[in-house]
Amino acid sequence: MATIFSKIIAGEIPSYKVAEDDRFYAFLDINPMVKGHTLVVPKREVDYIFDLEDEELAAMHVFAKHVALAIQKVFPCRKVGEAVLGLEVPHAHIHLIPMQSEKDMLFSNPKLQLSDEEFKKIAAAIHEAWEGNA
Amino acid sequence: MATIFSKIIAGEIPSYKVAEDDRFYAFLDINPMVKGHTLVVPKREVDYIFDLEDEELAAMHVFAKHVALAIQKVFPCRKVGEAVLGLEVPHAHIHLIPMQSEKDMLFSNPKLQLSDEEFKKIAAAIHEAWEGNA
Repeated sequence: MATIFSKIIAGEIPSYKVAEDDRFYAFLDINPMVKGHTLVVPKREVDYIFDLEDEELAAMHVFAKHVALAIQKVFPCRKVGEAVLGLEVPHAHIHLIPMQSEKDMLFSNPKLQLSDEEFKKIAAAIHEAWEGNA
Repeated sequence: MATIFSKIIAGEIPSYKVAEDDRFYAFLDINPMVKGHTLVVPKREVDYIFDLEDEELAAMHVFAKHVALAIQKVFPCRKVGEAVLGLEVPHAHIHLIPMQSEKDMLFSNPKLQLSDEEFKKIAAAIHEAWEGNA
């Protein structure tokens, strides 16, 4: 059965897309810890990130780097943090989180409530920065 | 000035090494969140992980994957999580953390106190598993 992320990639479930190439897809986390919190996923449905082939894992992280640098242009921060947990959705994903402090990376933090309009504006801004970098 | 991690790599500060190649070094976090918590660093001193060249970033994550799979052999877990924060030590590093639940990835968790003997035993076991994978 397709994961929720595969349905997002296929457009069956809407998402706030920020970047895409032939193998990877990046979109805003719908329960963001901070503004700009983004998920990067491989289009190929693989549960555990370390089950990806070396080359695919490497390419995913390079793709994520360029998305992270775009996030940072839109949301100036000390660094963009990365996290891979993956016990909830069985489809490998990298969290990219602009940090002002290490506390911004605590997954126990309350999640932001953003409007559809805010999500769209953020996604468009990161997408534009990402295209500019590419 | 050399970072604490560069001093560790140079052997000026002792560490519990678990893996090493010509470009990367992995050792136990001295303040582990769980047993097997490991740090992976590039030997080249770069502060921000996204300042690494694409190829070096890619190679670092492939190296980290093989360390993660070795950790998992020694510490059976649901998955090995990854996190990159990097606001404390200005030398890029990936945390590898064997997870039984997503809560194991909360950096606010109390740290384990392990003896020198325990650290040595853990490092030796992961090193052996890593060599076996290589």
